Amino acid sequence: MLGTASQVPTRERNHVGFVLRWDADALLFDPGEATQQQLTRMGVSVNDLSHICLTHLHGDHCLGLPGVLARCSLDRVRHPVEVHYPASGAIYVERLRHAAIYDDQADIRQRPIEADGVVVATPGWTLSARRLDHSVEAFGYRLEEPEGRHFLPDRLRAAGVSGPMVHELEAAGQVRARGRVVRLEEVSEPRAGQVVAVVMDTRVCDAAIELARDADLVVCESTFLDAETDLAGRYGHLTARQAATIAREAGARRLVLTHYSQRHPDTGAFAREAAAIHDDVVAARDLDRIDVPRRIRRSG
Amino acid sequence: MLGTASQVPTRERNHVGFVLRWDADALLFDPGEATQQQLTRMGVSVNDLSHICLTHLHGDHCLGLPGVLARCSLDRVRHPVEVHYPASGAIYVERLRHAAIYDDQADIRQRPIEADGVVVATPGWTLSARRLDHSVEAFGYRLEEPEGRHFLPDRLRAAGVSGPMVHELEAAGQVRARGRVVRLEEVSEPRAGQVVAVVMDTRVCDAAIELARDADLVVCESTFLDAETDLAGRYGHLTARQAATIAREAGARRLVLTHYSQRHPDTGAFAREAAAIHDDVVAARDLDRIDVPRRIRRSG
Repeated sequence: MLGTASQVPTRERNHVGFVLRWDADALLFDPGEATQQQLTRMGVSVNDLSHICLTHLHGDHCLGLPGVLARCSLDRVRHPVEVHYPASGAIYVERLRHAAIYDDQADIRQRPIEADGVVVATPGWTLSARRLDHSVEAFGYRLEEPEGRHFLPDRLRAAGVSGPMVHELEAAGQVRARGRVVRLEEVSEPRAGQVVAVVMDTRVCDAAIELARDADLVVCESTFLDAETDLAGRYGHLTARQAATIAREAGARRLVLTHYSQRHPDTGAFAREAAAIHDDVVAARDLDRIDVPRRIRRSG
Repeated sequence: MLGTASQVPTRERNHVGFVLRWDADALLFDPGEATQQQLTRMGVSVNDLSHICLTHLHGDHCLGLPGVLARCSLDRVRHPVEVHYPASGAIYVERLRHAAIYDDQADIRQRPIEADGVVVATPGWTLSARRLDHSVEAFGYRLEEPEGRHFLPDRLRAAGVSGPMVHELEAAGQVRARGRVVRLEEVSEPRAGQVVAVVMDTRVCDAAIELARDADLVVCESTFLDAETDLAGRYGHLTARQAATIAREAGARRLVLTHYSQRHPDTGAFAREAAAIHDDVVAARDLDRIDVPRRIRRSG
């Protein structure tokens, strides 16, 4: 968590932004000001970043982009870096890309999002976007891993499958061992793909629930507290209670709260309000590292 | 001092930027990223700011501008805020002003600098700019207070001048007391105006020395150390030794070093190198508050 403030940063809270590490990939969401410095503080290099995803073009969610892009050039990032953002914000992304003088060397690929749907598909995961309900066009994100299989060591051993044979079994779906064909299904069980959802600035809406559906982890804005529900509705934001209700209705496992109003220096109030509704709540603080919960195993 | 890093911020150093408080005015120089947050940490409100001065349009000197301008609107700053910058950087200032979506309400006045000369003249001080020698067009700044007079309490008392008569004496140059005319010169002595200079990204050049001429305080970039003099020359920067030499040749009283390369986490090395040349050196660290030295009194 690079920052947890909403519009107004405080002494303790940088503007929002976080990095999702997913196997070899790292996705940067909503780089607020000073993201470059916060990345350093968390030990993340711009060389690690493959995708930068903006939910919308309010400053607290994007003013760190110029610094990150300039740093990609300075640090000679060799791979392409894709920047995803609502298509209606294209003019701002253009300005942010060229907001100051720098030696623009990196391979930055602009990926405007026109409508709900898949925005990135890799062998290991897909990223989709869905329009939320904020004061300006805003998209939430959902990263999904395909279903896989988990090997059962006892059965592998009993079948005489080991070493390179395991890779062959995984790739081909079967392998010959001790004179017979061993099928993948005999020695493994289904492994659910994991899901991480990002629900930033929005009112309560169906899209927020669909993004968070059965997610292992949902990072959700929580600008206000229950007593400010009117304010939240007026400005297109969520209260901690609403965030927790979305997570519960979606069946999401872990809820991470962020994007707090400067009215509330104490994150404990957000945590307590959400914990009354949902049983796994983390009220994030700047520079926290938060785990995606371990996979749930189905019976094989 | 809002920050003391050069191109690359570190865990301990924000990008450069500082506020000069001058009586009721506050001038913000070179707002790097997260200036908005650093202002909060130092207890400075955007409502205090009357002028924002950019030396040049490299990102470490200006990427905090959008956040500061948006904050001026959010906090309903009623007075005009003037933004000064090299005219050749106008396209970047336009982008920085509209880099993200916000409710643009504040009275922001863009003041491109075309050539050396006075850029602001107020009754209490003037601000002038002078072109430096960097890799892109860059201006240094010099704030000068006019010469004034310092009242001598013993002589005022002896002349029978007190209360509102003092203001009349100050405004008119003379006042009647105890049946005779008392002239300002009889009861006061000359008071030199104070001078603060800002020498940011530059190679050694005459302009740097002229900016710092007889200054009470000069804030000077000091990206490198003496062993890196070649690097400094190549990239258009100063070493701590060069900064101190400029201050000594200019007859400047206090030298404040900032804008350090990330190669050198320890500011002590900069301080020691400069202290061998100049006798009042402050190697600034983030969030330091540094006084302009007290006025020098001439004999009356």
